[in-house]
Amino acid sequence: MTELLSIILAAGEGTRMRSATPKVLHQVGGMPMVGHVMRTAVRSGATDICVVVGPNHEAVEAEVTRHSASARIFSQLERLGTGHAVRQAREAFDGAQGNVVVLYADNPLVSSDTVAAIASRLNDGADIVVVGYRPADPTNLGRLLTQDGRLLAIREHRDATEEERKIGLANSGIIGFRAETLRSIIDRIGNKNAKGEYYLTDAVELANSDGRRVEFIEADAGEVMGVDDRTRLAAAEAQFQQLRRSDFMQAGVTLKDPGSVWFSYDTEIGRDVTIEPNVVFGPGVVIEEGAVIHAFSHIEGAHIGRNASVGPFARLRPEANLAEGVKVGNFVEIKKAEIGKGAKVSHLTYIGDASIGADVNIGAGVITVNYDGYNKHRTVVGDGAFIGSNAALVAPVNVGAGALVASGSVITEDVADDALALGRARQVVKPGRAKEIFAAAKAKKQAKKGN
Amino acid sequence: MTELLSIILAAGEGTRMRSATPKVLHQVGGMPMVGHVMRTAVRSGATDICVVVGPNHEAVEAEVTRHSASARIFSQLERLGTGHAVRQAREAFDGAQGNVVVLYADNPLVSSDTVAAIASRLNDGADIVVVGYRPADPTNLGRLLTQDGRLLAIREHRDATEEERKIGLANSGIIGFRAETLRSIIDRIGNKNAKGEYYLTDAVELANSDGRRVEFIEADAGEVMGVDDRTRLAAAEAQFQQLRRSDFMQAGVTLKDPGSVWFSYDTEIGRDVTIEPNVVFGPGVVIEEGAVIHAFSHIEGAHIGRNASVGPFARLRPEANLAEGVKVGNFVEIKKAEIGKGAKVSHLTYIGDASIGADVNIGAGVITVNYDGYNKHRTVVGDGAFIGSNAALVAPVNVGAGALVASGSVITEDVADDALALGRARQVVKPGRAKEIFAAAKAKKQAKKGN
Amino acid sequence: MTELLSIILAAGEGTRMRSATPKVLHQVGGMPMVGHVMRTAVRSGATDICVVVGPNHEAVEAEVTRHSASARIFSQLERLGTGHAVRQAREAFDGAQGNVVVLYADNPLVSSDTVAAIASRLNDGADIVVVGYRPADPTNLGRLLTQDGRLLAIREHRDATEEERKIGLANSGIIGFRAETLRSIIDRIGNKNAKGEYYLTDAVELANSDGRRVEFIEADAGEVMGVDDRTRLAAAEAQFQQLRRSDFMQAGVTLKDPGSVWFSYDTEIGRDVTIEPNVVFGPGVVIEEGAVIHAFSHIEGAHIGRNASVGPFARLRPEANLAEGVKVGNFVEIKKAEIGKGAKVSHLTYIGDASIGADVNIGAGVITVNYDGYNKHRTVVGDGAFIGSNAALVAPVNVGAGALVASGSVITEDVADDALALGRARQVVKPGRAKEIFAAAKAKKQAKKGN
Repeated sequence: MTELLSIILAAGEGTRMRSATPKVLHQVGGMPMVGHVMRTAVRSGATDICVVVGPNHEAVEAEVTRHSASARIFSQLERLGTGHAVRQAREAFDGAQGNVVVLYADNPLVSSDTVAAIASRLNDGADIVVVGYRPADPTNLGRLLTQDGRLLAIREHRDATEEERKIGLANSGIIGFRAETLRSIIDRIGNKNAKGEYYLTDAVELANSDGRRVEFIEADAGEVMGVDDRTRLAAAEAQFQQLRRSDFMQAGVTLKDPGSVWFSYDTEIGRDVTIEPNVVFGPGVVIEEGAVIHAFSHIEGAHIGRNASVGPFARLRPEANLAEGVKVGNFVEIKKAEIGKGAKVSHLTYIGDASIGADVNIGAGVITVNYDGYNKHRTVVGDGAFIGSNAALVAPVNVGAGALVASGSVITEDVADDALALGRARQVVKPGRAKEIFAAAKAKKQAKKGN
Repeated sequence: MTELLSIILAAGEGTRMRSATPKVLHQVGGMPMVGHVMRTAVRSGATDICVVVGPNHEAVEAEVTRHSASARIFSQLERLGTGHAVRQAREAFDGAQGNVVVLYADNPLVSSDTVAAIASRLNDGADIVVVGYRPADPTNLGRLLTQDGRLLAIREHRDATEEERKIGLANSGIIGFRAETLRSIIDRIGNKNAKGEYYLTDAVELANSDGRRVEFIEADAGEVMGVDDRTRLAAAEAQFQQLRRSDFMQAGVTLKDPGSVWFSYDTEIGRDVTIEPNVVFGPGVVIEEGAVIHAFSHIEGAHIGRNASVGPFARLRPEANLAEGVKVGNFVEIKKAEIGKGAKVSHLTYIGDASIGADVNIGAGVITVNYDGYNKHRTVVGDGAFIGSNAALVAPVNVGAGALVASGSVITEDVADDALALGRARQVVKPGRAKEIFAAAKAKKQAKKGN
Repeated sequence: MTELLSIILAAGEGTRMRSATPKVLHQVGGMPMVGHVMRTAVRSGATDICVVVGPNHEAVEAEVTRHSASARIFSQLERLGTGHAVRQAREAFDGAQGNVVVLYADNPLVSSDTVAAIASRLNDGADIVVVGYRPADPTNLGRLLTQDGRLLAIREHRDATEEERKIGLANSGIIGFRAETLRSIIDRIGNKNAKGEYYLTDAVELANSDGRRVEFIEADAGEVMGVDDRTRLAAAEAQFQQLRRSDFMQAGVTLKDPGSVWFSYDTEIGRDVTIEPNVVFGPGVVIEEGAVIHAFSHIEGAHIGRNASVGPFARLRPEANLAEGVKVGNFVEIKKAEIGKGAKVSHLTYIGDASIGADVNIGAGVITVNYDGYNKHRTVVGDGAFIGSNAALVAPVNVGAGALVASGSVITEDVADDALALGRARQVVKPGRAKEIFAAAKAKKQAKKGN
């Protein structure tokens, strides 16, 4: 395989984001934009990844390293244009043998197919490959002047003739070079322009005047969308979601209202899963065949087994692990807990730091009391046990298989298999007393009004 | 009334659905597609309904029978085209006196107006009536070649001239026959074509060459939408919902964001009902005038009385029956229960298998404990009773009118009218003890870290 | 400043709303339409506001007075057209010195910029200024016939020539007058037309024939949208929401899916706040910088401090006041309560009429029992206290700083600082008893089936 170096420019300030967070750390589909672009580079066959970050961008560096420990990071201390940014990665492209592709961390949706297509053209003999796209309105964008499959020039809007302004193919900024071509050109890019910046697009003119082969490919407009404010961020998120929804439906997932289901970059869903409207997926979710996710569910880091039923109004948090046929109902939160095959947790319950056996029935209003203010403790419930409504299981505690915890009990000690555990007071009734209490309360209210 | 036989073709495999469920059982608006088409046939005056199902489609047969015990079911064991499918229902059309309309179970949105219009044309003298529509892009679809109100031919795209390809009117496949015409033609439809299948559309050519009167009508493109994958299923659902939303708004229902309210095929809503964003209706819901449904509510099989208030975050399940002015608040689930006039169930409560009297106040965190692992038991609360927060009512149990159940009580025995019932332990306070407990917990945490 | 009198016409019947509520009281963004228009008038510099209401519109009058005690209300007892409606406010314009602008209470989205632009033109010498707009389809609307910046006439569609019907600029009905011009014209408007009504638009012709200067300005079509049925009401709501969403994103708020967040007219949000999909804001919400609002949250009348985290599935009701760094988790309702810095209320809890100290930890399933059926009582929890799961705090009650309430306790008396409070029964275990109970329940179930 030819070597492919990907240089990802991530130094932009992102002023229009109006944010204390660097632009490229804003998320799409639950992943920072810079992560999307790194992932795309890897998928398209990049053998070496460099990221050029801005000054004081330690948080960006940390994110880059989190995604790939082997990624090299370069700093662009002054923001003097894309040509200048690429130069910061000189150490990387100086020794490169194959191809170099320049990507942008604020173009989170560029596809690995597009990057692979650039590499393929370079391998077939092109010296430079520029990615164009056809925006709804190309006004103010640089146009690609092409002829017979060759890219003659990139013409900025202000410099374009009337005829040239009719060209619909715009410059995305994404560009690939044979490494040798890049090296021969990069230092010849000048900054004699209004802003005094070094523009990587000038490489096209230089290469053509050298008699090199400059080509172009077209990408989908949605794919090369750049994000520079929160409105564009929302647009990128929408585009990302639309692609995911479409993929899942084609694969046999029913989405009753696709537009109201939000996936994460890594959501995995089996065939014949049904998802009702209004479901939010955070990262790390796997759903197996035949499961039903009812409306108003919020799920992250969870594994949902075959034919399980979740929601409506369920919250599954990281490490919730539901076996086959489990039923999690409304107003239930599950976190860091195994729920055994066929178990039911139907209403108003919190299960955290627990292991619940197969066929267990958890009543309404049950709480696993897992926290003492400093430490988390574990609750274990054996197969076929029955936990009565409004019971509290104070961890660490074990409830044996087949055991029964009476409604309203506070369980602080282990319960043996098949045992009944109660922790509640005996009922006392005081005839006629309610009437007196209400009369007093009413009088109090009237007295207040009287004041 | 002229007899109208409706033959509904439901034998398609639906491979592209990528589903273990037969295509025509996938739902739109909470009802399987085949059910929608059967309902349309009935509404348009069909006196006899036949459904042609595929091999091993017992589940489809069951659904058909569930909708109409008198519907006749025929099996198409081999899938040899629409002409072949219709032939399977020979027993039905052989004896038919009036008209025959062929519908498709994967066209769930066809309207009874369209079917009635076909019948009307047949009654007025047409021998065959074909339903056309104008899709956004007719490429690859069969076009209707018409002249002076007559349908001359249906031209497949591949056979069409440049001129014919400009025709925007496409064939929906929906077609009506005088029964006698159908009988005279059906066996003359051949299979000399690329796929070796029998196409019902060939009837048009045969009838014209017989000198019969072949007409056409136009239907809305949304109405004749066919469903063959989950993306199209979602599109049909969206179209269905849009129609329902529009109808309700015209009838005097306020939908703050129509696109975020999902109705069922049978939802009934009175005037001056307000529905906030994000409400999901399952089947069987009736809402009376002036009620307010707050955001994030999930409602099925429930009756909601005048001026009642539901949600946000309410779940009403089948047989929840709310009288006038009832208030059901957040994180409340109600199932198989009558809630009396003016009663309030405001927060974090589960009411199941119960009868709650008028003007009852149910506190927060109250649970009716209705299940013993095998049987469901009933809770009855009399008018004006007050159930304190976090109380559990262990069914079967009666709480009398005007009674007061103290907060945190577990009630296992009946409570008389006006009585006070308590089932909770007396409070004990241990001065300074919290400090010691926290110190120990903290030490434990630090010890863990130390390891 | 020149005086500006705003006459707001609010007398329409709104038959097509099919509502018992007067049309102008239907809400957009949580505020009745008439309120929006009054607010716009004030913002655009109106020094005097008059509202013309219909007969029996006491509720409208009350709403007007609620918005501005100084607004003058006039009744139009018969609905004889806009010219007639304006005449009802004669008392107001008779004495006016400056300008008069006529607005419509069912045009809730007209902007103060548009009204200010009218006033500005009048101040610069125009006698009348009419607001036009360019609808997608102007058919059936009155067109503005203009020349050299002057408005020559308003031509009704039925009276327009083919050429005039090509004009895209339609009459919005919004119109400004120099007060003196209005006085000179208003009584000369006749009713010799098909409906026998007095049309304010006739003023244009009268003024032109008097040789007065009649001008026009253009407003955005969305802005002058009129509401006459619930479909249009939903469209106005959508337009309102789109503007709010766009404003917030430009200001540095992240909306993951803008279309699924519904703001109120007065929502205030700081920079770098993130809002997940599906959040509903009622009136009176303020959110400070860096807070995160998770999906499925319903918030009204609440103040959310810096870096606080709310939801998913949180309900904040009026007077919920969250300090910096507070965490409110799932299935939690908070009402009329102060939550101190860094406190956590993570799950299944109701906090009402309470003051919760800093760094307090509220367990799952905790209830503040604030209501006795007649009066509301207050709960106070000191800094650093820990309230165990499923506890009920029966107000009025104080829990001291650093105190610990054991899980499942019902607390009815004050707890001192650093004290441990318990209110629960000791656990009792009956070996093997569960097995017997389940066997009996199972037998009962089988006996039922046997019947």
